[in-house]
Amino acid sequence: MNNEEMKKLALELHQRSPGKLEVKSKVTIKNKEDLSLAYSPGVAEPCREIAANSEKVWQYTNRGNNVAVVTDGSAVLGLGNIGAQAAMPVMEGKAVLFKEFANIDAFPLCVNTQNVDEIVRIVKGTEATWGGINLEDISSPRCIEIERRLKEETDIPIFHDDQHGTAIVATAALINSLKLVNKKIEDVRIVVNGSGAGGIATAKLLMDMNCGDLILCDSRGIIHKGRRQGMNWIKEEMAERTNQDNITGDLARAMEGADVFLGLSVPDSVTKEMVVSMNRDPIIFALANPVPEIYPHLAQEAGAKVVGTGRSDFPNQINNVLAFPGILRGALDVQAKDINEDMKIAASQAIAELIPPANLRQDYVIPDAIDKKIAKTVARAVAKAAIDSGLNRKDINSI
Amino acid sequence: MNNEEMKKLALELHQRSPGKLEVKSKVTIKNKEDLSLAYSPGVAEPCREIAANSEKVWQYTNRGNNVAVVTDGSAVLGLGNIGAQAAMPVMEGKAVLFKEFANIDAFPLCVNTQNVDEIVRIVKGTEATWGGINLEDISSPRCIEIERRLKEETDIPIFHDDQHGTAIVATAALINSLKLVNKKIEDVRIVVNGSGAGGIATAKLLMDMNCGDLILCDSRGIIHKGRRQGMNWIKEEMAERTNQDNITGDLARAMEGADVFLGLSVPDSVTKEMVVSMNRDPIIFALANPVPEIYPHLAQEAGAKVVGTGRSDFPNQINNVLAFPGILRGALDVQAKDINEDMKIAASQAIAELIPPANLRQDYVIPDAIDKKIAKTVARAVAKAAIDSGLNRKDINSI
Repeated sequence: MNNEEMKKLALELHQRSPGKLEVKSKVTIKNKEDLSLAYSPGVAEPCREIAANSEKVWQYTNRGNNVAVVTDGSAVLGLGNIGAQAAMPVMEGKAVLFKEFANIDAFPLCVNTQNVDEIVRIVKGTEATWGGINLEDISSPRCIEIERRLKEETDIPIFHDDQHGTAIVATAALINSLKLVNKKIEDVRIVVNGSGAGGIATAKLLMDMNCGDLILCDSRGIIHKGRRQGMNWIKEEMAERTNQDNITGDLARAMEGADVFLGLSVPDSVTKEMVVSMNRDPIIFALANPVPEIYPHLAQEAGAKVVGTGRSDFPNQINNVLAFPGILRGALDVQAKDINEDMKIAASQAIAELIPPANLRQDYVIPDAIDKKIAKTVARAVAKAAIDSGLNRKDINSI
Repeated sequence: MNNEEMKKLALELHQRSPGKLEVKSKVTIKNKEDLSLAYSPGVAEPCREIAANSEKVWQYTNRGNNVAVVTDGSAVLGLGNIGAQAAMPVMEGKAVLFKEFANIDAFPLCVNTQNVDEIVRIVKGTEATWGGINLEDISSPRCIEIERRLKEETDIPIFHDDQHGTAIVATAALINSLKLVNKKIEDVRIVVNGSGAGGIATAKLLMDMNCGDLILCDSRGIIHKGRRQGMNWIKEEMAERTNQDNITGDLARAMEGADVFLGLSVPDSVTKEMVVSMNRDPIIFALANPVPEIYPHLAQEAGAKVVGTGRSDFPNQINNVLAFPGILRGALDVQAKDINEDMKIAASQAIAELIPPANLRQDYVIPDAIDKKIAKTVARAVAKAAIDSGLNRKDINSI
């Protein structure tokens, strides 16, 4: 289907019902007895039980399977700051994916404000409704602050997919790519281009996995200690933690001798020459969408060993759907109070291990996103990591 | 089933799944094409359309059918202030009824605060998510203030069922009862006992229908101008509008010569003697639950012509289920910006008219709540009243 066809079909699909979500009852209301059990007076019993012991909310209500998909619409897809109202179709879509891939009851929560304090207040103020929170399409670095505060101030898992979903899946693909080129993550030099939500989170996750030197770039070039222009608080923080030789210059300079390029940036920002300047068997993940930083055939002509993109029509698609359903599923399954780095790393490793080493190929380092079995595997790994971290309220044996 | 059996069955029902609600997808995700229409990249199209014209949110998303069931848990059933967490089973139950009776996609929003400003802030801050708001189990007079502010500060229908649902259904039953005793609403003297959410709203609705003199009482007796003890701002407001002769004294004094007693108060607060002191053919609605202000057989022995209660095991059950699904359905059907008095009166009249005058009997002044056709009739009347009031965004012909 071509682009115009797709637009037409997408609009038709969205206005059919309209929308993509509905709320359904899991109980039958056929007569007065049904009514008196599901509603007054019978409903008073679970209320009393929860009033006496708030932990019983998980036992008598759907809270433990409810996830809010929260946005302020400040960074929606490639469309930018279109506001929470216009972001609704994405939030409904995300909720559909949560349900289809992980049987999670996700519901959009579009907030009419872009004030960080207000957003934190609203989400925190409705914590009693949710088993977990998925932040979505919130601009950087505000999203990082919102997530950090909610993690501190609530007792439920908070997950910002644009940061961590991308980071986890790109890392999974990298784990498998490194096996193909026989390098260890501790030894490789990695360039992450793009210092938005996805770029920062990917850099952090790789550092938490003890990767070799990591150079973070943005549209002005290499982020380094002492840089003045185009900085913000999170870039300052990253300048301290990355780029061990504190090199300066542009992206081309960063890529000289690097083993891995990870782009979460803008179309066509990488040339064949830059790929040629890298270390042997370079690995390229060019995730700008729909036009990547460099097209796969160009990267390969320049010597790239493994190339991935964000597109479904090229091999090695880095698709967040591989991660977020299973991560929240795993966190909810054990009623985790948080999602920590170990849980994210466990998710990356679980996704990578879905392809046995013998089956790995240059054009097959990451599984197909549409496979609905993946979320279960990821959930199990994440639940185990939560338990190992002592973040669970419930044990996995009781699931 | 006895009380102990009911408690056991209710707990079993609630922990089966657990909970009573789920979120479902209305679209199928079977392959990459489905994914690309419901989610990225196709989803960008409806987002763009809404960004260009925010009214298109009703056309491309489910917002127009989403209703938040909002509580702070400050006045849950007869259980009192048990908090938002323990109120969750009621909110899920309410959402189930919205779906079953009016195909509305209602979702609980349990707020962790009992501060009026904060609650208004949270609901207002998520307005872009909802087609309407149902406030639930919030204590009086805070609920009146929250509702009033949300009505002013948002552009969607706000409905507090504990106030208006009760008022509308009790009024419907009264309309029919008055036909049986051949009295006009303009002429009757009405005593409303109870000055909580339901009592105040019922008194207001009856006054908006030009009833005769209305005396409002609370646990300290008649509310009158100049009373000092146990007042609050809404009771002060009501003291100005009710009780035209400004009589003082207790409930027994109020009931002398009255035509109608409407109790939204406490068990056993009305005696046979009080009923005997009323005008000919007294009408008694004793809605305290489960133990009414006076049991029907006692009221009848004392001469009551029509008796209703809140219980399903006595005739003439005043059940909010008769009202709220149809009211919100009607409001959503025309994308109403508000729910005004005319819409509530239209609902009362529509419910009353469901019983043809020839079929009215002392023990049949209000239809059976379990009849799922009622909501459609109520919705039609409410939608028409919204259009007549100019509160609709959409015309009923386009439904």
